[in-house]
Amino acid sequence: MSLQAPKDMAAERAAADFSIDRLSRLWAGGDKQYEMQQKAYEIIKNDPELVVQPPRNILEFTRDEWREFTMGQIYRVLQLFKEYGNDREFAYEIGKAVNVYSESFSMRFFVHESLFRNVVNMLGNKEQQQKWNDDIDNVRVYGCFAMTELGHSSALRDIETTATFDLATDEFVLESPTITATKWWIGGSGQTSTHAVVISQTVINGQHKGHNWFIVQLRDKVTGELMPGIRVGDIGKKVGHDGVDNGWIQFRGVRIPRSHMLQKWSQLERDGSYTPVPNPAVMYATLIPERLSLITVTTQLIGQALTIATRYGVARRQGPKNQQIMDYQSHYAQLIPAISFMYMVKSAASTLDKQFEVLTAGGEMDPVDYLNHMGDMHAASACLKGLTGWYGSEILEICRRACGGHAYSAYNSIGQIIGDWGVMTTGGGDNVVLLQQAARILIYHLDQKLEHDQYPELKFKSSSHYILRAKEYLATPSWPVREITDAIRNLRLLEDALNAILLNSIREAMAKGKGLNDVLMDCVRVAEMHCAVFLFSDAVSKYGAPLAPEGIDKSVYSIMHRMTALWGLHTLHRYSDQGYKEGFLTPQQVKSVEEHYLEASKALRKQVIGLTDAFGFPDFVLKAPIAKYDGNIYEPYLETLLQAPNSVGKTPYHDKYIKPLTERVGPSNN
Amino acid sequence: MSLQAPKDMAAERAAADFSIDRLSRLWAGGDKQYEMQQKAYEIIKNDPELVVQPPRNILEFTRDEWREFTMGQIYRVLQLFKEYGNDREFAYEIGKAVNVYSESFSMRFFVHESLFRNVVNMLGNKEQQQKWNDDIDNVRVYGCFAMTELGHSSALRDIETTATFDLATDEFVLESPTITATKWWIGGSGQTSTHAVVISQTVINGQHKGHNWFIVQLRDKVTGELMPGIRVGDIGKKVGHDGVDNGWIQFRGVRIPRSHMLQKWSQLERDGSYTPVPNPAVMYATLIPERLSLITVTTQLIGQALTIATRYGVARRQGPKNQQIMDYQSHYAQLIPAISFMYMVKSAASTLDKQFEVLTAGGEMDPVDYLNHMGDMHAASACLKGLTGWYGSEILEICRRACGGHAYSAYNSIGQIIGDWGVMTTGGGDNVVLLQQAARILIYHLDQKLEHDQYPELKFKSSSHYILRAKEYLATPSWPVREITDAIRNLRLLEDALNAILLNSIREAMAKGKGLNDVLMDCVRVAEMHCAVFLFSDAVSKYGAPLAPEGIDKSVYSIMHRMTALWGLHTLHRYSDQGYKEGFLTPQQVKSVEEHYLEASKALRKQVIGLTDAFGFPDFVLKAPIAKYDGNIYEPYLETLLQAPNSVGKTPYHDKYIKPLTERVGPSNN
Repeated sequence: MSLQAPKDMAAERAAADFSIDRLSRLWAGGDKQYEMQQKAYEIIKNDPELVVQPPRNILEFTRDEWREFTMGQIYRVLQLFKEYGNDREFAYEIGKAVNVYSESFSMRFFVHESLFRNVVNMLGNKEQQQKWNDDIDNVRVYGCFAMTELGHSSALRDIETTATFDLATDEFVLESPTITATKWWIGGSGQTSTHAVVISQTVINGQHKGHNWFIVQLRDKVTGELMPGIRVGDIGKKVGHDGVDNGWIQFRGVRIPRSHMLQKWSQLERDGSYTPVPNPAVMYATLIPERLSLITVTTQLIGQALTIATRYGVARRQGPKNQQIMDYQSHYAQLIPAISFMYMVKSAASTLDKQFEVLTAGGEMDPVDYLNHMGDMHAASACLKGLTGWYGSEILEICRRACGGHAYSAYNSIGQIIGDWGVMTTGGGDNVVLLQQAARILIYHLDQKLEHDQYPELKFKSSSHYILRAKEYLATPSWPVREITDAIRNLRLLEDALNAILLNSIREAMAKGKGLNDVLMDCVRVAEMHCAVFLFSDAVSKYGAPLAPEGIDKSVYSIMHRMTALWGLHTLHRYSDQGYKEGFLTPQQVKSVEEHYLEASKALRKQVIGLTDAFGFPDFVLKAPIAKYDGNIYEPYLETLLQAPNSVGKTPYHDKYIKPLTERVGPSNN
Repeated sequence: MSLQAPKDMAAERAAADFSIDRLSRLWAGGDKQYEMQQKAYEIIKNDPELVVQPPRNILEFTRDEWREFTMGQIYRVLQLFKEYGNDREFAYEIGKAVNVYSESFSMRFFVHESLFRNVVNMLGNKEQQQKWNDDIDNVRVYGCFAMTELGHSSALRDIETTATFDLATDEFVLESPTITATKWWIGGSGQTSTHAVVISQTVINGQHKGHNWFIVQLRDKVTGELMPGIRVGDIGKKVGHDGVDNGWIQFRGVRIPRSHMLQKWSQLERDGSYTPVPNPAVMYATLIPERLSLITVTTQLIGQALTIATRYGVARRQGPKNQQIMDYQSHYAQLIPAISFMYMVKSAASTLDKQFEVLTAGGEMDPVDYLNHMGDMHAASACLKGLTGWYGSEILEICRRACGGHAYSAYNSIGQIIGDWGVMTTGGGDNVVLLQQAARILIYHLDQKLEHDQYPELKFKSSSHYILRAKEYLATPSWPVREITDAIRNLRLLEDALNAILLNSIREAMAKGKGLNDVLMDCVRVAEMHCAVFLFSDAVSKYGAPLAPEGIDKSVYSIMHRMTALWGLHTLHRYSDQGYKEGFLTPQQVKSVEEHYLEASKALRKQVIGLTDAFGFPDFVLKAPIAKYDGNIYEPYLETLLQAPNSVGKTPYHDKYIKPLTERVGPSNN
């Protein structure tokens, strides 16, 4: 009975009509990246300081074990960085492999390596960069990023922490004036960080001068004791990320030198004369790379869940005909579009990375130009976080249900992934707010285009480029395509429909009243759709042609083309109500889109294992016995349970609570 | 700053335009129930064996602590049952109060008190009931319910466990022939149960005779050691329900007397002659009360999450105007319809309980009649589980996001509730399968009605009663109502629209092909909508009139009427795509429904605290500092963190992993 599953798995793998190996290499970013990744996995796999070795199970860890083990991983990775120091690229690949193994490691290292570093470098002047970068590189300081406050999430406007300049001593004095001013959720501050970058209200000469970022030492670098005036605690138990020591921080008259205010955009002289930032937006610019990094988190976490659900879906048989559960429409028609989303996101990542390079390229950019580009990237990254966060949690729920009861076992990883993922929808800027901001930008640009025929010139293709053709699209009252198959053959037709529906929706939201609370949910939906369409358009530009261009593996191009088409159909189906409400789609078109969408999913049914194999997650990363690569799922699952502490043997509290009840003899003498 | 929140909370409470006290009493089931409930909460609140007392926090418990504490609660509740033995109703109320405090307690006690007991009583003959009931009542045996198998979820068709009759010894021999036959997830079996009811294939004289239920002893009642041939383990760590000792069981030649086969519907004589069940469906009848009990779990768990999100939503201020976050459309327009769902579900519960009484009433019912009634209740309870499970998890996600980052703290309970809830969507019958079964019944009845004008006569109003008027509804090509306000004033018009859309959708699914996999998702959606419409129709029959009838508090009737109207609009809005796909709704109607739906939510904005207060959850039950009844949320939240183990003080692994990095002195001497 349990021999069937491995056979099924092998047959599914053989059924892929593209080269899984070639697609894996594309996914990894090329042959070299792929080889390095494989080697990195081999190295970390058996390293007990990086990967928990059986019979211990990381999914069993207590909070204390998680916190310590994760710091141990960082320590070990830094050792390996040194060992492989001559090959920086490969050393970095080891870190990436551990990221994939543990989202907690990834986040805890990220707050120092990326958040802390980026603030110093994007907001500090040359001198400050020079002063700190060597210590950051060598982790002689461990940094964290103190923005959020207990009473204010990441709403910077309301930040209460103050940094008051003391002219006499040339210092700033930091203070948390209320309980709601307590810095909250600060990753790395609970147990690790020696330093923090802290955003505060700046008070100079009794006047509030807006926000600045300050470097504040939290702990003594040798003893680990807190510095004077610093009060810190670990945030305790969370829904996920048990390996990250999120903490809270209060400041009581903490003194730091003036030079610890980051001064690239604003400056404070010895005599107290202050030059404010040219535009407050530059202070949040550091959030753009943070949001772009979420793409990696998405493909890592959601990709793992999809691999688990997909493998279980072909290994498990159930129902009247004892079929593979993946054959049920409720399985494949939900999982395959989600898989296509992974490919869209991965493909868009390279586009956005290139855009970000424009923003951070050497050489001075005109400030207006800089802000235009930053604004465009802010809109793109904000709505990407919104769509990805929400659709990501929807996909995780699909995966969870696709694994049936077995997702309820902590040992099949889905629970852990969902817990870790949670922070993506509520941390780093509320999704509603981000999507609303993105919608406001779209409304603004559409208004500018329609009223004044204006649209900013950018060095890259804006995600809202369709606004350039707004008049033409809006003049089309209904979708002229009668046969959906035409639009599947020519994806530009599908793109046109999406652009038109989107523009109609933006215009509708604009007409209802810009920025009004009563259109908030409309705006959110519009921005979400904008992002879904951006992913599609970007993929069409890469894989939209029916035939592969020279130099790319035909089978890989073909599957990417099908992924793209499916994503387009998914998006049209998902937002067809917008099309219907605006009169752009007829009931017949809506029905037909649904039919073709389901058909396109079904046509890809046999590709699921190949498509998720290409994500390249080894079994030790997935940690889910029901998702074993070879399809042998049941024995390892039972084995995992047998290894769990206190899972067999006499019940410890039997004599205390059970025996007094059951030792009594009743009339029936059962 | 932190004084504002309590003021806001008081103002919100004062703004309720109905008597919160009267609504609370209605919710509790009447004055007497309400008083008893209050008293029960007072009793358990300070009992350290029932409710974890600060500074300890149940949300911090390890698995071992949860397992033991929960059994301790059961032990203590049984003591209190004795103490209050003269007032059985009140004793029972204490159990209910502990249920509300801990879903783990609720489930672990339920497997004995309800699942085990129901199987013995619904499937055992009089003699067997007599033999076991006294021991069940007095918990001299502790029972569990062994249905699910590792390889087969609850698909009974595929159950592999065998019970082979040994004529020579007049015994059955139980065997788990494969690893996939292992009984899995069995609540109470991991550490507690002395006995199990086990569903098995029955083998008599070498022939498979279908399923029967058997009582099997698992553990010695005095020593707690496993009985010969029994292999049991605890299932280990799960996503939730840490207090429940789910387990797995394998049988190796376990011998039980013939009299341990439950023989109400099937019989086995001493000589091996066997009378099979008249209809296999009776073997699953015990699942109906299980599914009905889910209604209570729903109002308990989802109601708590809604209370938490609602209280935090009015206590928290944020945004450009520093408004209460509940004022954002994205908050109230999602939370208030969810609250109306709670009232609909609660109201339907009494209707379904009365129906179930018809099924279980004394006196013999004609078998065909019995199966007709059971079939109807099966359809109703199955789709109720489907809708509730899924919409319930959607609501939890809404609540989670409504609490922003603070839902990510384990100390604000939302995470715990989501973990506990998870089992509702994947346990006790897969929702897709249940909804598909319900859809199949609807399609069957519609076909019978249209083709043969037949519809079974029942002693209660079927949830699919609208099929009686199918021809009339289906003859209406489009919704004649032009002003949605008309349908809000007269809810029967709204009901008509829903019935018509539903019938169109059933007919469409029927036309596409009965039972075909390609319409699986259509079927699921139809059954979901059927349930949403059932809830609405049931509430319309109770609260549909614009004015309160004599004898009921006018303010309470009025709010229940508005809850009903909102649920109707919600349902029409949610399934409006079915309406426009079938051409029943025009784009203008769809838009107008959406507008009125949002308006109806907005009009109820100031009622949120009254509506959730009426659920009656005390602070110690909610366990969420951000949801304190008095609105003072921030101080207790920080206090909770300070009480968490290892949350302050020097990092235990500082010298091992951090100091070696940070004690090094670099060129900058930071």
